[in-house]
Amino acid sequence: MLPFDVIEYKERVKKVKASMEEQGLEVLLITDPANMNYVSGYDALSYYVPQGVIISTNLEEPVCIVRLQDLYCATETTWMSQENVIPYPDKYLWEPKNLHVMDFISDFLKGKGLHNKKIGLEMDAYYFTAHWYHRLEKCLPDATFIDATSLVNWVRGQKSVRELEYMQIAARIVEKTMYNAIEKIMPGVRERDVAAGVYHDLVEGTGVYGGEYPSLSPIMPAGERTAGAHFSWTTEGKYQNNQLVYMELSGCYKRYHAPLTRTIYIGQPPERVLETTKIVVEGLNTALAAVKPGVTCEEVERAWQTTINKYGLEKESRMGYTVGLSYPPVWSEDTAYFKPGEKTVLKPNMTFHMMPGMWLDGYGVAITETIRVTETGCETITRFPRELFIK
Amino acid sequence: MLPFDVIEYKERVKKVKASMEEQGLEVLLITDPANMNYVSGYDALSYYVPQGVIISTNLEEPVCIVRLQDLYCATETTWMSQENVIPYPDKYLWEPKNLHVMDFISDFLKGKGLHNKKIGLEMDAYYFTAHWYHRLEKCLPDATFIDATSLVNWVRGQKSVRELEYMQIAARIVEKTMYNAIEKIMPGVRERDVAAGVYHDLVEGTGVYGGEYPSLSPIMPAGERTAGAHFSWTTEGKYQNNQLVYMELSGCYKRYHAPLTRTIYIGQPPERVLETTKIVVEGLNTALAAVKPGVTCEEVERAWQTTINKYGLEKESRMGYTVGLSYPPVWSEDTAYFKPGEKTVLKPNMTFHMMPGMWLDGYGVAITETIRVTETGCETITRFPRELFIK
Repeated sequence: MLPFDVIEYKERVKKVKASMEEQGLEVLLITDPANMNYVSGYDALSYYVPQGVIISTNLEEPVCIVRLQDLYCATETTWMSQENVIPYPDKYLWEPKNLHVMDFISDFLKGKGLHNKKIGLEMDAYYFTAHWYHRLEKCLPDATFIDATSLVNWVRGQKSVRELEYMQIAARIVEKTMYNAIEKIMPGVRERDVAAGVYHDLVEGTGVYGGEYPSLSPIMPAGERTAGAHFSWTTEGKYQNNQLVYMELSGCYKRYHAPLTRTIYIGQPPERVLETTKIVVEGLNTALAAVKPGVTCEEVERAWQTTINKYGLEKESRMGYTVGLSYPPVWSEDTAYFKPGEKTVLKPNMTFHMMPGMWLDGYGVAITETIRVTETGCETITRFPRELFIK
Repeated sequence: MLPFDVIEYKERVKKVKASMEEQGLEVLLITDPANMNYVSGYDALSYYVPQGVIISTNLEEPVCIVRLQDLYCATETTWMSQENVIPYPDKYLWEPKNLHVMDFISDFLKGKGLHNKKIGLEMDAYYFTAHWYHRLEKCLPDATFIDATSLVNWVRGQKSVRELEYMQIAARIVEKTMYNAIEKIMPGVRERDVAAGVYHDLVEGTGVYGGEYPSLSPIMPAGERTAGAHFSWTTEGKYQNNQLVYMELSGCYKRYHAPLTRTIYIGQPPERVLETTKIVVEGLNTALAAVKPGVTCEEVERAWQTTINKYGLEKESRMGYTVGLSYPPVWSEDTAYFKPGEKTVLKPNMTFHMMPGMWLDGYGVAITETIRVTETGCETITRFPRELFIK
């Protein structure tokens, strides 16, 4: 049932503990669903309630704390022994003024004598609200809280062989999906029918492998809406002649993602769209050529930016980010970015979504790849013609 | 383009301002994506970055602050004048130690002379992290922060005619989807193929109305996995004879949801499953009969609990919650719940997802409805046979 060998999970925990030690942490409360999954295997659609995994130098195994009705989900998906899966009853929920799940977690820490330790919290991770923090502060007055946002995310950076296999499967899924969607786009076709096909294909998967729901809904605007970066399909619109469309999709397998974006023109594309596409592809290729171990993220961004600057274009937003394991609301791993000032040094088996999207006046063009840093350079995990598709 | 008349948005803002006044707030920073949508119309897949809507008794209109690359999305989807849509550049992102979007928002408040006011924050809303709060505290030392979690959520409680129309459309979508999925489930059919059909149908919609992505992925475990409350399909599994399946799905239209759950048995159901189903349906019907204006939520829960207790069953988790407008990670509106101790009094046009799911030893049964409180009682918005489906 487990997507990874127990030995791989144990290796991850060891790395997390090493990183905790470096940062002087005795306890780490992990609440980011992707980080919980990474160290424990926990995988369920329950991240809309508070839950967490506790790692401590004083505890042999991680402890997974979930809602009682999710106990079976935790037992089934985690690798630890049953006593390290601890359910809390519903009375800790929906009672902001009374009991809270953080009270339950605090009681657990007290019971283990960990209430007065240096405790790392993911202060800026999705779902870790200001209120949760205040409850912990109140319940654990003797603790020292230290911001450990992204501690686990950074450990996740270099992917294992198995993780890369899952991203390859996600890539095959998104390629098939993209191919079918481009095939279907025609003047008069309803946007929702293409979107329905996209979701269908992402879940159907390919060959022996089925897909999972991606952490972000497909982004697929048409026409003027391509000028915004985060529009989806319209519920009643139809594709029209002389319209630009772009689709940012991701396959997902065992929660591992491989995003891919392509731009389509319905009809004879205007010169400026062809020109922008040419520049974006040249910029992307230059950036890909710059990727190799030892290079910093800002150098990769500079390769991209210098290329598009030659043509009078500029991109103020980041042109890439780490990608892999994730839950909603997004598939970014929130560690390194291809952006100015980013000093992170590339290492083998780091994985990125290179996102050279340009949102210009009245239209947008985006052609992206999911990539892996190799021992000597980089390879794309997604494989799809790097061009403007003309329908 | 707007899903509601400007007058309806203005009415909402007026109600929010009245509620702010009651709570002594001069400024409200709204960061919950559903609340942002409710007051401003803002709708994009951008809620993975910090963004917000500011409402103040000193400001005529709400002010929507979004990432620069989402400016077009905001201009297109909000009703306010262009000067009240304010973009921040990417330099405020991905720099936890340096600039942060909350710094930008603080500067905006300073510019308007609102830095020393009583400022309401959604301290326990999804996405409002502890880190965001600390940045605001640091940037606005003269402000008084007050927890205003759910202030807007409560204003959203009683739905307008148009909102109810959207929930009806979402209900038609989920009914069609559920019907097709039940049709497809057979021994030997791959779970992912049914799931692919589910997503396809949710997006394809029905008749003139297309669907949107739901705030939570379909929950659809089979076999022993029905004993967990938040499992999805498996990527490689097939349905088998003598297996229980349940599906919790929601249609979505203009971000309004209508969830529906049904349970299916493949083969000849064992007595205990038939018995549990009978009890769940009787409990649900009793609870539905108890719903009317003036009744409290705990009374409805008691009607349900008393009924199932007669048969020796007990449900420790809530059996319903408000539902309607939402974004990931869930479709609950997070206000009133059908649970013990909940004193909220029902009013006409409140909408709930009645969730009498039982997760028992080795299996689970759930049969639910989305409902509206009427002037005299209640009606279901979802309409689907309330029974165990035998395949």
